[in-house]
Amino acid sequence: MHAYRTHTCAELTSADVGQTVRLSGWVHRVRDHGGILFIDLRDHYGITQVLCDPDSPVFSEVEKVRAEWCIRIDGTVKARDPELINPKIPTGEIEVFVRDMEVLGRATELPLQVFGDQEYPEETRLRYRYLDLRREAMQENMKLRSDVVASMRRRMWEIGFREYQTPIITASSPEGARDFLVPSRLHPGKFYALPQAPQQFKQLIMVSGFDKYFQIAPCFRDEDPRADRSPTDFYQLDMEMSFVTQQDVFDTVQPVIDGIFEEFGNGAKVDKHWPQISYKDAALWYGTDKPDLRNPIKMQDVSEHFRGSGFAIFAKLLEQEGTEIRAIPAQGGGSRKFCDRMNAYAQKEGLPGMGYIFWREGENGVEAAGPLAKNIGPERTEAIRRQLGLGKGDAAFFLGGKPKSFEAFAGRARNVIGEELGLTEKDRFAFCWVVDFPMYEKDDETGEIDFSHNPFSMPQGGLEALDGDPLEVLGWQYDLACNGYEILSGAIRNHRLDIMFKAFGLAGYDEAEVRRRFGGMVNAFQYGAPPHGGCAAGIDRIVMLLAGTSNIREVIMFPMNQRAEDLMMSAPSEPSPEQLMELGLRVIPQD
Amino acid sequence: MHAYRTHTCAELTSADVGQTVRLSGWVHRVRDHGGILFIDLRDHYGITQVLCDPDSPVFSEVEKVRAEWCIRIDGTVKARDPELINPKIPTGEIEVFVRDMEVLGRATELPLQVFGDQEYPEETRLRYRYLDLRREAMQENMKLRSDVVASMRRRMWEIGFREYQTPIITASSPEGARDFLVPSRLHPGKFYALPQAPQQFKQLIMVSGFDKYFQIAPCFRDEDPRADRSPTDFYQLDMEMSFVTQQDVFDTVQPVIDGIFEEFGNGAKVDKHWPQISYKDAALWYGTDKPDLRNPIKMQDVSEHFRGSGFAIFAKLLEQEGTEIRAIPAQGGGSRKFCDRMNAYAQKEGLPGMGYIFWREGENGVEAAGPLAKNIGPERTEAIRRQLGLGKGDAAFFLGGKPKSFEAFAGRARNVIGEELGLTEKDRFAFCWVVDFPMYEKDDETGEIDFSHNPFSMPQGGLEALDGDPLEVLGWQYDLACNGYEILSGAIRNHRLDIMFKAFGLAGYDEAEVRRRFGGMVNAFQYGAPPHGGCAAGIDRIVMLLAGTSNIREVIMFPMNQRAEDLMMSAPSEPSPEQLMELGLRVIPQD
Repeated sequence: MHAYRTHTCAELTSADVGQTVRLSGWVHRVRDHGGILFIDLRDHYGITQVLCDPDSPVFSEVEKVRAEWCIRIDGTVKARDPELINPKIPTGEIEVFVRDMEVLGRATELPLQVFGDQEYPEETRLRYRYLDLRREAMQENMKLRSDVVASMRRRMWEIGFREYQTPIITASSPEGARDFLVPSRLHPGKFYALPQAPQQFKQLIMVSGFDKYFQIAPCFRDEDPRADRSPTDFYQLDMEMSFVTQQDVFDTVQPVIDGIFEEFGNGAKVDKHWPQISYKDAALWYGTDKPDLRNPIKMQDVSEHFRGSGFAIFAKLLEQEGTEIRAIPAQGGGSRKFCDRMNAYAQKEGLPGMGYIFWREGENGVEAAGPLAKNIGPERTEAIRRQLGLGKGDAAFFLGGKPKSFEAFAGRARNVIGEELGLTEKDRFAFCWVVDFPMYEKDDETGEIDFSHNPFSMPQGGLEALDGDPLEVLGWQYDLACNGYEILSGAIRNHRLDIMFKAFGLAGYDEAEVRRRFGGMVNAFQYGAPPHGGCAAGIDRIVMLLAGTSNIREVIMFPMNQRAEDLMMSAPSEPSPEQLMELGLRVIPQD
Repeated sequence: MHAYRTHTCAELTSADVGQTVRLSGWVHRVRDHGGILFIDLRDHYGITQVLCDPDSPVFSEVEKVRAEWCIRIDGTVKARDPELINPKIPTGEIEVFVRDMEVLGRATELPLQVFGDQEYPEETRLRYRYLDLRREAMQENMKLRSDVVASMRRRMWEIGFREYQTPIITASSPEGARDFLVPSRLHPGKFYALPQAPQQFKQLIMVSGFDKYFQIAPCFRDEDPRADRSPTDFYQLDMEMSFVTQQDVFDTVQPVIDGIFEEFGNGAKVDKHWPQISYKDAALWYGTDKPDLRNPIKMQDVSEHFRGSGFAIFAKLLEQEGTEIRAIPAQGGGSRKFCDRMNAYAQKEGLPGMGYIFWREGENGVEAAGPLAKNIGPERTEAIRRQLGLGKGDAAFFLGGKPKSFEAFAGRARNVIGEELGLTEKDRFAFCWVVDFPMYEKDDETGEIDFSHNPFSMPQGGLEALDGDPLEVLGWQYDLACNGYEILSGAIRNHRLDIMFKAFGLAGYDEAEVRRRFGGMVNAFQYGAPPHGGCAAGIDRIVMLLAGTSNIREVIMFPMNQRAEDLMMSAPSEPSPEQLMELGLRVIPQD
């Protein structure tokens, strides 16, 4: 007989009745039913009920076991009485009568119970992660993550991509976030950096003639922590292709991502049509560049109805350049109570309030109500109603000003309205591509032009496009949003040095500066660079969505806490004087 | 038509003759045959011959292209004349007549030719890695590596393992090599470390109740560079299982590794029988703990034949305690010329020489020859011959002293003799498990006892075994050797704190010290730790073996040079004063 087990704790069925078996696992729960001990013995695969009474030669030892002891038992498989069959678990037809037992690993008093649903502070969970991970929900999350990543790999291989590993100890990368540095011992005073992403390397792989690259790539950013972000590292499904257009990238990626959501989405609906929405439209319609399309609300510009109207605040506002009035249509929101609650929500968020109109049954059919409706009169309210396609029982909320000043709030209000009115579908994954990102933006304070996103994207229209107004230049750059989260981001890269130098020039970097900062890539592009593009999908975030959690630490095996500490392993910690000496470093005393 | 290509450069055959096609790729080679330009156009997949003559509207542009320009061509597929068919490439039946061309990426003068077999200094190759990687051998090596890793994953999934990612920014690990440190910005003066291996984490994964773990894991060691070692990081196929014995690990791993060698070994013979050789026997028989079993030579202890013999040097030596005489049998080495050459080899390696006997046709059949034979006389030489199973035309070499003083040389001499005599088989992968490693060793100078390998291995015999002589304690610890390389190493872990504290105690570490150094794991083991074990296989080394190279940089996409520098990306480099300030560090000026 094997030293530890003949079966796992999920294997035995009524077909095994009468057999002598050996099982190993953890004591999930012990119950004493009038001198008969019932133990739920748990391993990674499942639970088997084992029992013991004074007839067993090891009864007195079995009496001593406690929750989470790791034990090995030998015993005989018995059929359960029909009324005791548990149809919920695969082993529910049987139980095992214990004839021998070995304690493999004793457990001291538990700071965290594995059995049951008790909640624990996150610090406790992280400090005793090995207990936390034994809980069913965490086992499932980790299996899910592993299976999602495996499926991504399978899908990428199937469409002709190969995975290539890029360096982890390398040079500073130009992603713009803060690097983690690694001091060099062989070159004291010099530092390596951990890659913020394999961006430059994957582009170099294309320059090296590899047609299709992917990698499940660890990325490192020394960022201030946030609930949906690991404070140190995260994983991307990173990919790059040569000789492709933006649409080629979309056509390649969509089946991979949508396949993953089909496979692991627990039967939720997975949209097959992924609309392409320009960055500008996304801002107007959804108030964000990561729209949640499960929510059908689409905001609209309704400025014309307020221009010169009796609602003085908006009419006056519209006299300033660059202002707009936008409407959030709210189907089914047509009650004063709901509208007032939303208005109060706006005030809580720091706005003066949201104007609204709602439509109710009036004397002559549909009637617009609310203070704003009175101010602008029936003709304008009716025009608004028609533009927004609303009717009786619906409402619309209005925000005005320079779009940048209220867009983000409008997006959040759209979410809240969609949720509260039950408009936002559940059990659905809704995707959209956001495209046509502007290459540049103007700093409001300094008036300076800088890249708004990735400086390495190819501008739409190429070299000529850079002759006009930089703020009008769009990039071949795209995001994929799912249910309000950005899950992927990418671009067709700028592989031409002439265009690159000109593009950087517009942002105030001269050629020497570009060569200094991105020398590796610039040098490479001198030797026959192919057109190429790709993207990177956030694995932690995709698994979060599939696991239905909004805390990234639920889908990472051993995460840092929000102060970027590993409480279980005690990191970071003080280095030894010898280590510092070898690295040629001195710690500056803090006070 | 697609913007860049209708086909890859490996796709077109005679079935496509007459079609208009678009191809993109690099100019591999240009030849001018009397005004007709022939270009080998290369992409990742293959080469297509394109041609152009003054009838083409773009002849004058095509005339300008040079090696490694990246171009797009449109043209018509033509059948080659029968005598010009190239059967060596899939596209050898056709060529494409160019009607349009676009230069996608120009190339300046090349520091390294892609076409041809010219050798370049490694520094040049690394600095211009993107050109080096375009060469066929490197493309093949990278594809091989990617395919090997993919196959490892598939094989691990198939046998029920899941891949779990462990932290890369973490605490110092107890592997014993030097850590790379990462200064913390949020906790100035404190440092993270990059993991030397996921050793502690994979053990914690077992404590967390996951039954079977694997990971293609990056490992980081700040070691001084060597040809077969990357100076910064390397990859392991890391795995761990709960409720297993050593034999279970072997039975799990063997099909994975042997499957990989079958799949990628280019038809070389892959041994199916993997002998288990004790560490002690390996030292005696092969002079190393990573024997090359393609070489049939097995060394033997022949002390008894020299004790009190006429060969005074050996006879005297044997009077000292702990000394032995060992023989290296050399089938077919029975000539004075060969024996003298080996003797000279020993002297070159710093030894006084190697005694030898060889057997030749004598008056009464087989006759022993050489000075040593004369010294000890025919009876003893005959006994030696019989023990070693040698005959006419064979030889034996002898080394004496304390085994530790000559074992390593004996191992090397065995390799040389095997090679020179053609005994070592080519085109074969020969594996063996090396088992029964001693847990402890005595420092020759200080006389202190310390762990000889991994302190976390379970001693054979458990707690009781630690009561006797520590130097007699063996561990459940093992290596896998292939063709003289250690390609895998592992152990059944010590999961019991009582045994762990006692084991560390023997090596001079008290409980407090163990808790201080390995607190994370010690804490975890208090909560029902399961028996577990596993191993890690060196991916870089396996791919090296399969690629037939002995330089690890041939199988890594972007390796560091031997001074741990990335010449292409300029790493390491000087940090900015702001970066140092944020990290609370000062660089100590070197002089």
